[in-house]
Amino acid sequence: MANLPLPKGFKGIVPPLCTPFTEDHEVDTASLERLVNFQIEGGVHGLFALGSTSETALLTDKQRATVLEVVVKTTAGRVPVLAGAIDTNTSRAIDQAQTAKQAGVSALVVTPPFYARFSQAEVIEHYRQVRAELDLPVMAYDIPVAVHLKLERATVIQMAQEGIIAGLKDSSGDEANFRGVVMERNRLGLNDFSIFTGSELIVDGAFLWGADGCVPGLGNVDPAGYARLYKLARSEDWAATRLEQERLYRLFSIINAATVGRTGPTASALGGFKTALMLRGIIATNVMGRPMTRYNQAEVERVRAILVEAGLL
Amino acid sequence: MANLPLPKGFKGIVPPLCTPFTEDHEVDTASLERLVNFQIEGGVHGLFALGSTSETALLTDKQRATVLEVVVKTTAGRVPVLAGAIDTNTSRAIDQAQTAKQAGVSALVVTPPFYARFSQAEVIEHYRQVRAELDLPVMAYDIPVAVHLKLERATVIQMAQEGIIAGLKDSSGDEANFRGVVMERNRLGLNDFSIFTGSELIVDGAFLWGADGCVPGLGNVDPAGYARLYKLARSEDWAATRLEQERLYRLFSIINAATVGRTGPTASALGGFKTALMLRGIIATNVMGRPMTRYNQAEVERVRAILVEAGLL
Amino acid sequence: MANLPLPKGFKGIVPPLCTPFTEDHEVDTASLERLVNFQIEGGVHGLFALGSTSETALLTDKQRATVLEVVVKTTAGRVPVLAGAIDTNTSRAIDQAQTAKQAGVSALVVTPPFYARFSQAEVIEHYRQVRAELDLPVMAYDIPVAVHLKLERATVIQMAQEGIIAGLKDSSGDEANFRGVVMERNRLGLNDFSIFTGSELIVDGAFLWGADGCVPGLGNVDPAGYARLYKLARSEDWAATRLEQERLYRLFSIINAATVGRTGPTASALGGFKTALMLRGIIATNVMGRPMTRYNQAEVERVRAILVEAGLL
Amino acid sequence: MANLPLPKGFKGIVPPLCTPFTEDHEVDTASLERLVNFQIEGGVHGLFALGSTSETALLTDKQRATVLEVVVKTTAGRVPVLAGAIDTNTSRAIDQAQTAKQAGVSALVVTPPFYARFSQAEVIEHYRQVRAELDLPVMAYDIPVAVHLKLERATVIQMAQEGIIAGLKDSSGDEANFRGVVMERNRLGLNDFSIFTGSELIVDGAFLWGADGCVPGLGNVDPAGYARLYKLARSEDWAATRLEQERLYRLFSIINAATVGRTGPTASALGGFKTALMLRGIIATNVMGRPMTRYNQAEVERVRAILVEAGLL
Repeated sequence: MANLPLPKGFKGIVPPLCTPFTEDHEVDTASLERLVNFQIEGGVHGLFALGSTSETALLTDKQRATVLEVVVKTTAGRVPVLAGAIDTNTSRAIDQAQTAKQAGVSALVVTPPFYARFSQAEVIEHYRQVRAELDLPVMAYDIPVAVHLKLERATVIQMAQEGIIAGLKDSSGDEANFRGVVMERNRLGLNDFSIFTGSELIVDGAFLWGADGCVPGLGNVDPAGYARLYKLARSEDWAATRLEQERLYRLFSIINAATVGRTGPTASALGGFKTALMLRGIIATNVMGRPMTRYNQAEVERVRAILVEAGLL
Repeated sequence: MANLPLPKGFKGIVPPLCTPFTEDHEVDTASLERLVNFQIEGGVHGLFALGSTSETALLTDKQRATVLEVVVKTTAGRVPVLAGAIDTNTSRAIDQAQTAKQAGVSALVVTPPFYARFSQAEVIEHYRQVRAELDLPVMAYDIPVAVHLKLERATVIQMAQEGIIAGLKDSSGDEANFRGVVMERNRLGLNDFSIFTGSELIVDGAFLWGADGCVPGLGNVDPAGYARLYKLARSEDWAATRLEQERLYRLFSIINAATVGRTGPTASALGGFKTALMLRGIIATNVMGRPMTRYNQAEVERVRAILVEAGLL
Repeated sequence: MANLPLPKGFKGIVPPLCTPFTEDHEVDTASLERLVNFQIEGGVHGLFALGSTSETALLTDKQRATVLEVVVKTTAGRVPVLAGAIDTNTSRAIDQAQTAKQAGVSALVVTPPFYARFSQAEVIEHYRQVRAELDLPVMAYDIPVAVHLKLERATVIQMAQEGIIAGLKDSSGDEANFRGVVMERNRLGLNDFSIFTGSELIVDGAFLWGADGCVPGLGNVDPAGYARLYKLARSEDWAATRLEQERLYRLFSIINAATVGRTGPTASALGGFKTALMLRGIIATNVMGRPMTRYNQAEVERVRAILVEAGLL
Repeated sequence: MANLPLPKGFKGIVPPLCTPFTEDHEVDTASLERLVNFQIEGGVHGLFALGSTSETALLTDKQRATVLEVVVKTTAGRVPVLAGAIDTNTSRAIDQAQTAKQAGVSALVVTPPFYARFSQAEVIEHYRQVRAELDLPVMAYDIPVAVHLKLERATVIQMAQEGIIAGLKDSSGDEANFRGVVMERNRLGLNDFSIFTGSELIVDGAFLWGADGCVPGLGNVDPAGYARLYKLARSEDWAATRLEQERLYRLFSIINAATVGRTGPTASALGGFKTALMLRGIIATNVMGRPMTRYNQAEVERVRAILVEAGLL
C-alpha cells in the first residue's frame, strides 16, 4: 500500500517508536511490527521512527533502513510515518533523509547538526539545504539536551514563513517559549504550520495553549492513554484531560527504575520504556543499543510493580 | 610503503589535519597532499586525521575514507598516522575504525559516544568493545565541548590499567585534572601510556608537567613552530619554550577574525586555520563543511594582516 | 493596623513588588506607596516584597528595612505581605528574616544559600534553622537562575512533610517537575501546602495542573490582568483564562526593549517593568540598582509603543 | 603597628585564610591568630582574608569585621593584608570595603556582583564605583564558579588600563585565557599590574607563563610548601618547582575525603583544609559555616592518613 502524504496542518499523537533489539543487538523486526500495530490500534495519529526515543543515535545506517522499511510496511498507510534525519552535518542528514524517502515515509524530522558548534544562521542553512534536496515536508526538531543548541523562536518562525519547515517538534522543555512560538504562528496566520510538544508530562497545558499534537515517548507504553488525552483536549474537557495526564505522569516513573551510575540517563529513560513494553508482551527483550546498559532483573521488577499499580499488567 | 605502527610511549607533535575542500564541498585531495607534506616537512611526529579540527563531523563516510587514503599514502610511513573513530555509538565507531584500519592507519583516536547521554561505566564499555574489535592501539579523546561528557580521571586510569587504551588526547581545557592524570600515570608506572594535550596555547606548561605530546590545531598553520617548541621543551630550555609558545599564542588570534553571529564558533576557529593555510598557499580554498559559513573577503584580510605581522606571509 | 497572618492554604496572585528608586538610588517611598496601592486596587491577593524582581540583591540592609516598612504600612492588613529572606548563608538569612518579622510581614520567602555550593542535605538544614528561629511561615523559593542550585522535588516534599515550609514559589522554569510537586502534594494530602508558580507566561497551565497561585513579575505593570486571569482559572473557564494569559504574554515583550550588551539580562527584564510603571505614572523613575544600566530614551520609547498597543497607556 | 601599603607590582604567595570557628559557629580568634602566624612564619608574602576559602559568604558582617581586625592586628605589618569585598551589588560591596579600610587592610579583592545577571559593561561600572569610593588598590577576583559570570579578558585589560584595578586574582580555571591576560599586560607595558592565579595545582605553569603570584587555598595547610615553590620558580629551577608542586598536588586530595551527598562541594573542599589545620594543631575545630556539613570522624581519619603520608603529621 502507498505511503500517506503528511496532511496540511497535521495534528494528533505521534509516538516516537522504540527500536526493539534481539539479544545480539540486531533490530527485532517481529517485535517492531507488533509495536507498530499496538500503537495504531491504540489510536495514535502518526508514527515517528528514528527519533531520540528510537535510539537512532545508537543504530547503524543499515539498522535505520531496516526500521523504516518495517515501520512503513507494517503501517500500510493507516497513519503518516515521520522519520528522523538526524546527523552531524547537512550532507549526512540528506543521506539519512534520502533513505527515509526511499522507504516511503510521509515527512522528515530534522535536528540541528551537532558535535561542532553552529550559529543560528548556519542552522537555517542546514534546514534550507535539506528541504531543497528532498521533496518531503520537514519538521524542525528542537532538542537541546541532545544537540546542545536551542532553536530560537526567531529561527523557527523565519523558517516557517519561508516555507522551509512544515512544523516543529519541541523537546526543549522551555514551555514559555513554546507557547510564544504557537502565538506567533497564530498571529502570522501560518495555519498549516504544525506545532508538536515533546513534553509528555504537561500535554494538557500544551493543548490548552494551542499545540497541535504531542510526540510522547511514554506513548510507546500506553498509546491509548495519549489518544484518549488528545480526544479529551480536543473536546475541551480540561478537567478530564488533566486527570488522564496525571495518570500518565504516574506511569512515567518507570524511567527512574534504573540504578544511577551503572546506567546513564538515556538508558534509564528508554530502558524503562523498553522494559515496560517487554513486560506488556509487545517486544521480546529490553536490550539497549551499544554501549548502553540494560535494565537488570531487580530493575525489571521495579517496572513491573509500577505497571501493576497502573493496571497495565 | 607500509604503514608505521604506533611506537610504545608515543611522543611529540601530532597536528589534527584540516580537511581542505573544493568549491563544491568535496575533499580537495591535491591540497590535502600538500598539507600532509607541509606538516611532515615542518618536523611533526605524527598526523591525526579525522579529528574535530578535520571537520570529521562535517564529512560523509566516503569523504572520511578518501581523507584517510590520501593521508596514509602521502605520509608513506614517514610518521605514524592516527585516525579519529568518532561516532554516536559503539557499532558506528567500530565501522569508522574498520575503515581506518583498512586505510592502514597506525592507531585510533576515539571519543565517548554522543547525542544520547551515557554513564562513565557505559563509556568504558564503548572503549572496551572498540578495542576488542580492532587490532589497533586506541587513544581516548576527551573533548567535552563536542560530546558533552567529561572522561573522568578514574575512567581514564582504569582503561589505561586494563590495557583498553594506549593513550589520552585531552582537549577538555581542565589543566589541573590533566596534570593529575599525568601524575597518576607516573605513580602507577604506566610508562607506555601516552598523554597528549589539545590545549595548544599552554603546551609549555603541559610539557613541564610531564605531557608526552600535543595535538595543536594551530599546528596546521605553523607546524615548524610547534616542532621547535617540542624540541625546546625536551631540552628543558623552558624560557625559550615559553617564548615560542607566546609567538604561537599571538598567531592564534586568526581564529577570531570571523564575524560573530553569521559564523558559529566552530566555523570561526577552523575557518581561521583554513584561511591562513589558503593564504600561505598550502590549500586551495577556505570552504567549510556544510552548513558552516566560510570566511568572507573582509575576514580573509584580517587573517592576512595577522600572518604578515607574524612573518608567515 | 495589625499585620495579616498568612492564611492556611494561601492562594492567589502575589506580585513581587518592584523597588522604585529616586535619581540618587535611594528607595522612593512615595512611588512605593503608589505601587502597593495600585497592586491592591488591581485585585491581587498578597504582596511579595524583597524578591528577585524587587532587586533585593541590589539593596542595602537599610533599604530593605525601608521597603518592608513602607509596604507593610501601606498595605495596612488588606492582604498578606510576604518578604524575601535571601542571603548567602543561614545566619545572614535569619538576620534578614528578623528584620522582616519586626516589620510585621505575614510570611518569609527563602531561597537556598548561594555563592558557595551546597548539597540538598545542607539546603534542608538551611531551611530547618531559619524556620526554627522565626515564628513565621516559610515558603521555599526555587530560583536556580539566581542561586545556581535546583530545589529537588524530594527536598521540597520532605520539608513540606516535616512542616519546615508552608509552601513553594517555583521560578525554576521546569514545568514538568513543578506539576510533579503538585501531584505529590495532593497524593500525600498536604492540603495546606501552597504551591505558587513564578512562570508568569503559562499561568493558565499551572492553574490547570493544580497550582494555588502565581508570583508574576509582570503583575507589577498589570495587576488587574493577573487578578482577572486568576478569577477565570478559578471558575474553570479555561478558554477565557488562556486569552487573558495571551494578552499578558504580548505585554511581556517590554522586557526585551533594552539593548543587549550595554544592559545585562536582569536590568533588561526589571528595567522593562520599571519603565512601564514610570510611563503608567505609578513610579517616578526607571532608575535601577547599582551597577545596573537604566533604560535610555530610545528604549523607553519602545516600551511606550508596547503599552500603547496593549491599551495600557 | 601601621598597616602595610600594597607594593606596586605586588608578587608572591598570598594564601586565602580559612576562618576558624568555635563549636558554636563564632569566629575563633585564638585559632585565627595562630593561623596568621603559621602562614607568615611559613614565608608567605601576603594574606588574603574574606575570600571564598575564608567562607566569607558564610559569615555575618560582624564576623567579617572580627576576622579583619584579628588578621590585621596579628599580621602587624609583617606582610600586606588583602580583604575581600564580595557582595551582590555595588553599594553593599562598598560597605564591605569600608569596613575593610577601617580595619587597616592594604588592598581590596572584589568579585563581580552576583545573584542578578550583569553585562560586562555593568561589571566594569561596579569596579569603577568601588574604586572611586575607596582610597585603596583593588584587585579583580575572577571566580565564575561562585558568581556565575566570567571576567572577560577585554574587561580586565580595560580596567587595568584605566587604572580601576591594580591586579587580578584568576580562579576561573581557564588557563589559556589567563596566559592571554598575562601576555596582554606585558604587551601593553602595564608593569605594575599584578596577576595572581588561584589554580593552586598548576602554579609552576602559571609562573612559567609570567604570573606574579598565587592565592592557594591549600597554602593554609602547607604555607612553607608554596613559599618554597615560589622561590624555586623565581630562581627558574623549573624541575624542582615541578616536584614541589607535585608534592602539594598529592596533598590536595584532602579535599575529597568527605562523603558526596551529605556534604556539598564547598564544604568538602574547605572542610578538608580545616580538618587538616585542626589535625596539625593550628586551629581548634573543623566546624563549618552554617548550613554546611562538618567532616565527621571517619572523614577526619581519611585526612589524617593523607597528612601522615605527606609527612605533615
